[in-house]
Amino acid sequence: MTDSASPHDVSLVSLAVSTVIFALRADRASEAASLRLPLVRRIREPFAGQWALPGGPIEATEGLEHAAARHLLDTTALRPTFLEQLYAFGEIGRSPDDRVISIVYWALVRSQEAQLAAIGENVRWFLADDLPPLAFDHNDIVEYALWRLRTKVEYSRIAHAFLGETFTLAELRDVHEAVLRRAIDPANFRRQMESSPAIIATGEHLSGGRHRPPKIYRYNGAVELTDRGPLTRS
Amino acid sequence: MTDSASPHDVSLVSLAVSTVIFALRADRASEAASLRLPLVRRIREPFAGQWALPGGPIEATEGLEHAAARHLLDTTALRPTFLEQLYAFGEIGRSPDDRVISIVYWALVRSQEAQLAAIGENVRWFLADDLPPLAFDHNDIVEYALWRLRTKVEYSRIAHAFLGETFTLAELRDVHEAVLRRAIDPANFRRQMESSPAIIATGEHLSGGRHRPPKIYRYNGAVELTDRGPLTRS
Repeated sequence: MTDSASPHDVSLVSLAVSTVIFALRADRASEAASLRLPLVRRIREPFAGQWALPGGPIEATEGLEHAAARHLLDTTALRPTFLEQLYAFGEIGRSPDDRVISIVYWALVRSQEAQLAAIGENVRWFLADDLPPLAFDHNDIVEYALWRLRTKVEYSRIAHAFLGETFTLAELRDVHEAVLRRAIDPANFRRQMESSPAIIATGEHLSGGRHRPPKIYRYNGAVELTDRGPLTRS
Repeated sequence: MTDSASPHDVSLVSLAVSTVIFALRADRASEAASLRLPLVRRIREPFAGQWALPGGPIEATEGLEHAAARHLLDTTALRPTFLEQLYAFGEIGRSPDDRVISIVYWALVRSQEAQLAAIGENVRWFLADDLPPLAFDHNDIVEYALWRLRTKVEYSRIAHAFLGETFTLAELRDVHEAVLRRAIDPANFRRQMESSPAIIATGEHLSGGRHRPPKIYRYNGAVELTDRGPLTRS
C-alpha cells in the first residue's frame, strides 16, 4: 500500500546498476567496424574469472544514472553521450547467493571515443554477437539490449549516437548495416532518409574534389524520436 | 566492478514497486469514456492523507512483475492482461525520509474489468489528466506514463489492451481518440488501419440488420509491435 518501503522490508533484496556499452569498432584498420562491447573480468565469487557487464552498487547519495556513469568511467574510462535506462532485471535466482535486482543502462559510444577506452587485463572488448558465457544473466541482458538497439535503430536517432554531429548518408548507412548485420540498398536508403524529417541537409558537401561530393547531413533536433526517459525529457 | 552488491552496500537504499493503471471508464452511462486511473489514499507518513499509486515493497522471494501484480490485486482487485515495466525512478529526495527507488509498472485494463475494480474509502478513480498533487513524485510518474501511452498508441497494439479480442474500427478509433484527446478523421483512420499489418479483418460483421454492418477486426499476433520486455518476449 505504500511506496515508502522501510529498509527492514527489503533487507534481503540488494540493488545494483550495470551498463551495456555498444560501440562500432574495428580491431584492425583493415577490418570493417562491428558492434562490440567492453566486459569486465570478475575477480571474486560468484562467477570469479568470468566476464560481466560493468556495474556495481548504488550509493545512497547518487542518482541511478550517475551510478551507472560512475561504474562505467571507473572500469572503461568512457563517458558516453548516450546513456539511457534499459530495464530492471529482477528474476529470482539470477544471482546464486542473494537476491540482486539490477537496473541496467545502455550506452552508445562513438568510434573515436571507443578507441580511447581503457583496455586492461580485466577489461576486454567482445563482438556483441559472439560472447562467451557471462556471469549472472548478463547474456540475456546483452541479447535484450541488442534487440532493442536493432528495433530502435529503424525509427530513431540512435544511429546518431555512433556518429559525429554531422555525417554523410554513406556513414549513416554503414552504422545501420553494422547494427542490423545486413546489406542495405543504397538507393532505397537514400530515398528513405531524404524523405525523413529526422535528418537535414546542412548545405555543405564533403570536400575532396570529387565530381559529385557527398552531402553532409545532421540530425533534426526538433524531432523527438527516442525515448530518453522521464529525467532527461525536459 | 561487481553486479552482486552485498546487502551491506545498499542498506540505505530501499526498493519498491508501483503501478500506473489506465482504463477507459465513464463515471456515468451518459458520459464518453475517459482515461482514468485508480489511486490509493495513504494512511501513514510521509504524505499521509494524499493519493498515491498502488504499490509497496518487493519480497525477496517474488519477481518484480509478480510484486507489481500482487500490490495491484490487493488494492484494486484488478488482474490486468497488460502489465509492463515502465521505468525505475530513483531521484534523490523523491521520498523525504529515506532513499527509495521505485520500479514502476504500467497496466492497461479493459472497461469491463475496470467496472469490477474495488472502490473503497481509500481507493478512488481519477481522470488521468486532472490529478490532485500526489504523494512522492507520483505526478511526474503518471505524466511520463501518459507520454509513453500517447506516443506508443500510434504505432503499437496498446489500444488492443483496452478492447476485447475483436473490435470494430469505430471502437478502435474511440480508444485512440480517448487516449490522444483529439478527434480523428474516420476516413483517414480507416485508410491507415486497413493498410496496417497490425490488424486483420476476421471476415465477420457486427450483426444488427444495418445496411452496411461494420467489419470485425482482430490484432495480428504475428506482428510484434510493443516492447513487452525481456521476460515475456519468448
